Amino acid sequence: MALRVGVIGGGQLARMMIAPAVELGLDLRVLAEDEGMSAGLAATAVGDYRDLEAVRAFVADVDVVTFDHEHVPQEVLRALVADGVVVHPGPDALQYAQDKLVMRARLAELGVPQPDWAAVRSVAELQAFLDAHAGAGVVKTPRGGYDGKGVRVVRAAEDAQDWLDALDGGDALLVEELVPFVRELAQQVARRPSGDIVAYPVVETVQRDGVCAEVIAPAPAAAERLVEVAEGIGRAIAEGLGVTGMLAVELFETDDERILVNELAMRPHNSGHWSQDGAVTGQFEQHLRAVADLPLGSTAPRAAWSVMVNILGGPADGTLEERFGAAMAEHPQAKIHTYGKAPRPGRKVGHVNVADDDLDDAVYVARATAAHFL
Amino acid sequence: MALRVGVIGGGQLARMMIAPAVELGLDLRVLAEDEGMSAGLAATAVGDYRDLEAVRAFVADVDVVTFDHEHVPQEVLRALVADGVVVHPGPDALQYAQDKLVMRARLAELGVPQPDWAAVRSVAELQAFLDAHAGAGVVKTPRGGYDGKGVRVVRAAEDAQDWLDALDGGDALLVEELVPFVRELAQQVARRPSGDIVAYPVVETVQRDGVCAEVIAPAPAAAERLVEVAEGIGRAIAEGLGVTGMLAVELFETDDERILVNELAMRPHNSGHWSQDGAVTGQFEQHLRAVADLPLGSTAPRAAWSVMVNILGGPADGTLEERFGAAMAEHPQAKIHTYGKAPRPGRKVGHVNVADDDLDDAVYVARATAAHFL
Repeated sequence: MALRVGVIGGGQLARMMIAPAVELGLDLRVLAEDEGMSAGLAATAVGDYRDLEAVRAFVADVDVVTFDHEHVPQEVLRALVADGVVVHPGPDALQYAQDKLVMRARLAELGVPQPDWAAVRSVAELQAFLDAHAGAGVVKTPRGGYDGKGVRVVRAAEDAQDWLDALDGGDALLVEELVPFVRELAQQVARRPSGDIVAYPVVETVQRDGVCAEVIAPAPAAAERLVEVAEGIGRAIAEGLGVTGMLAVELFETDDERILVNELAMRPHNSGHWSQDGAVTGQFEQHLRAVADLPLGSTAPRAAWSVMVNILGGPADGTLEERFGAAMAEHPQAKIHTYGKAPRPGRKVGHVNVADDDLDDAVYVARATAAHFL
Repeated sequence: MALRVGVIGGGQLARMMIAPAVELGLDLRVLAEDEGMSAGLAATAVGDYRDLEAVRAFVADVDVVTFDHEHVPQEVLRALVADGVVVHPGPDALQYAQDKLVMRARLAELGVPQPDWAAVRSVAELQAFLDAHAGAGVVKTPRGGYDGKGVRVVRAAEDAQDWLDALDGGDALLVEELVPFVRELAQQVARRPSGDIVAYPVVETVQRDGVCAEVIAPAPAAAERLVEVAEGIGRAIAEGLGVTGMLAVELFETDDERILVNELAMRPHNSGHWSQDGAVTGQFEQHLRAVADLPLGSTAPRAAWSVMVNILGGPADGTLEERFGAAMAEHPQAKIHTYGKAPRPGRKVGHVNVADDDLDDAVYVARATAAHFL
């Protein structure tokens, strides 16, 4: 019988697992938040991922559980593990993707390079950190942030007064130094429960308004040392945190040639969408292989350059699909991926991948194709 | 709203349309012959494709109809067209894929190179053909044959006595000269309703017991003239027969450097499975684009060589999926595609694609990976 992989969450990451699951003959089953979600084709249940009984009912028919997002509460995850359910990544790993303060403390223990940081509970504590870091910092809510939400650059402690006021008793905010970075990178690795790890080439990510806009794989003009350091960081975190499945490590490359860890994601990640069309094994297939404890696939690039451009917002005056004609006619080499989501300002509704021997051509074609959908 | 593409037939060809349909955001709907078919994930109806009312009920909810196979009767197809349903390929084209005598007559009109052939209704007619062709010929039932079924090499007319006896009144058998070929090739093209055509590189196909075993893309050591002639034949047939969607033309390359048309298929075809992982636009995506009347995608290869090896029969003592571990561990660059079908001697249950800069390496890895599943 085909191995049954249950995915909690019905967003685009679950959706993009469908194609490799069909080809590999894995029986993908999705617990979707609602009817009509991105991954609706594979949805076998609709329910609240915070509701243990709903999750229990869903996982009763699967061999391994994995995720479209990192928001399933620890108490639900730990109850599943106690039930004997196979969960990848497990709660011990996921806690580091769910709480940025817990993550920072653990990375410090592991000796992974990261920005200076502190847990702050008051204006005084925050101001002290700012004073020690040239008067600026990045304040983050430890939980629930994504795509730039829950992140604020501050020049004075009062800039975070509202967040400080809203803190519950023992809670704290995370403050990090404002890193003088020259660009952002992302390192992806996949790790099996057995411990086997494969690494993808480090990529350059371009963010706009806190949201990933473009990815270039591999990162242009990356020195060999940088590539090795980034891969080493990815491997160290996957092993140190016990990650299973795909891990994405968002990195800053500083103007003094350091690499510092910004964020973690323990699932397929926007920075790896290029691999669907640009690597021998795309990240969605790789995630399935890793969580199903199958041997990992080759991460070798299939072209000199791959470029991914997100479709953010989408067409306000019609459906994405109506733009296919013009986009495809002009760019027959572009690979268009859509998420089946209604366009809304800033929302990720699809992306375009282009692989080419020439980087400038790839960037141009990917941007020009994506522009047809705005 | 997403374009709804209805596929009649729930086999592996419909199954392999699911992945590109999900990525493009096309709403794929399948009329399956039974529950639990290969394309079951996308099945929205189960019914008999020979039953006009069952087919009518299925197509009521789709924007365009296409096929997993060529067996839908002409009367059903023509009734759909009369109803105003958009059908690609249409019955006028499909008749040539459904009846080899009709195909031979039409290709003769078009001046397409093909083996000598005749329609024969009696031992005397068949013997006359054999006598004129060195005493040998290939007898075919004009309808219903596939994968070597309905095909018989004969050295004497009596070898086909049973088929001749079984003929209904006006029916005939097709006899063709036994072509002294050095190898078999296949040329695929895709054609939109608007008439736009794109061609894939001509490939070499290796048959065993009348069934496709391996495909090498592009055909090794193919002279430029051969590539041009093959593409020209593909284009001429697609245009001459009014094909929409994917067309595969099986070809003989003779020892006197001719190319002759063997068979036609108006759908994605085993000879094009390599393109899933070896071309910018795989044949399943291309078929969807063509029948949905969207601009066609690039057919450029993504590697110097692509090799496809079928998994024929499959493991007798267990499921295919249980062999993943060893196959994937040894060959991380192999792309494994399975059809969700129970193994049975000679049955196509999956295939392996490998793309590589070195042909020998690609052949070795594809064969070695597929061998794990036997």
